[in-house]
Parts: sequence; C-alpha cells; structure tokens
Amino acid sequence: MPLSATTALAREVIVPCSRDTPALTRAESESLLAQIPKWTLSPDGTTLLRSCVLPDFASAYALVERIAALAEAADHHPDIAFGWGYVRLKLQTHSIGGLHRNDFIMAARIETLPH
Amino acid sequence: MPLSATTALAREVIVPCSRDTPALTRAESESLLAQIPKWTLSPDGTTLLRSCVLPDFASAYALVERIAALAEAADHHPDIAFGWGYVRLKLQTHSIGGLHRNDFIMAARIETLPH
Repeated sequence: MPLSATTALAREVIVPCSRDTPALTRAESESLLAQIPKWTLSPDGTTLLRSCVLPDFASAYALVERIAALAEAADHHPDIAFGWGYVRLKLQTHSIGGLHRNDFIMAARIETLPH
Repeated sequence: MPLSATTALAREVIVPCSRDTPALTRAESESLLAQIPKWTLSPDGTTLLRSCVLPDFASAYALVERIAALAEAADHHPDIAFGWGYVRLKLQTHSIGGLHRNDFIMAARIETLPH
C-alpha cells in the first residue's frame, strides 16, 4: 500500500540545522503544506500553526502528552497552548527565525498521532 | 509553625460556582493578589497571569504535568502555554467571564508545586 504524503514526510529524518541554514521561502513552505493540509502558515510565513478541538481538558492533555514525547524524541520542540477542549500548536526553527523542512516533518509526525 | 499566606489560600476549598456568581471586583482581586505575589492581573482585571522560566523543554513539561494533575483533581483548569524553557499560565472562571476566589486558590496550589 503506498504511504500517504503525510506519512512519508513523517518518516523523513530531522537533521541538525545551523544558524546559517536559510529558512524556507514562502513558495517552498506553501508547497510542503500540501502534505500537512490541517496546518496553516502564519501571516508572516515564519511559523506553522495547527488548532485541535477536543472534548475536554483530559483529552487535550492526553494529546499534549503524546506531542511532548514526540518532541523530546526528535529534539525539536513546538510551542504548545492548551486548556479545556483545545490544543494549539506552533512550529518554527527559532535559530533561523523561520521554517525549515524539519518543522514540516514534526508537523507530519504530529498528524500521525491518534487525535 | 504558622502557614504562609499562599499555603493557607491553597488549602481552601474550591466551591461550585454558577453563572450568576458575581466576578470579583478589581479591588478584591488586588487584595487577594498579595497572597500569590508571583501572579499578576491582566490589564482588564479578568484573568490571573503567571510566567515561569525553566532550563529546557523537559523541565517545562514536567511542571505542566504537575499543573495538569492539580487541575483535573480540582476540576478547575488553567490555560497553559509552554515550550522550550517556559510555562505561561492564565486562570479565569470562564462561566462568569472574570475572577472568582477559586482562581486564586488554584494559583496558590500551583505555587505549592516544586518549580
């Protein structure tokens, strides 16, 4: 069975990235966004955004737990906001002040979690 | 040994609260704030705010875990934002669109956690 585009992206390797690495252009980001259709770009194009609606606090926290474990395993950490019934995520490679392919890989891995 | 003001507040009971319960006035909130000096009021006076600086993602998440457990036990849930090196908290009684003594009790309980 062929992999979905999201799963294929999720399986890519997150590579070390120096401050000199150029951030993706908006066109490159928009093209990668097709593989993670539930994510959007921030208006300035520097950040990936995702909102999840959940039935209560416990479900939101259960999702946060899984995302935190993924983040630690990959050593690539989203900014996470959550509370009763929601989780909101931001991904950016802070050292380059913008988006790297690593951010899209993390986003795709988050999509592979049950939620 | 006498209890600190924060610990005394943390030991109070969180009571059920209906939509008719009036929110605290700004003067009442400012007076209670003396018992949780690391918290501030939002400019509109409807929300308690707290920022914590931590050494990394794992420490931030460890604090979030403890806060989430407290919140579920009390059935009173903050809005939590966290990432690498920080946790930011907001407390409000959403059903009354402002602050209730319960929010100050939750804030005091969070202060009793190790962090």
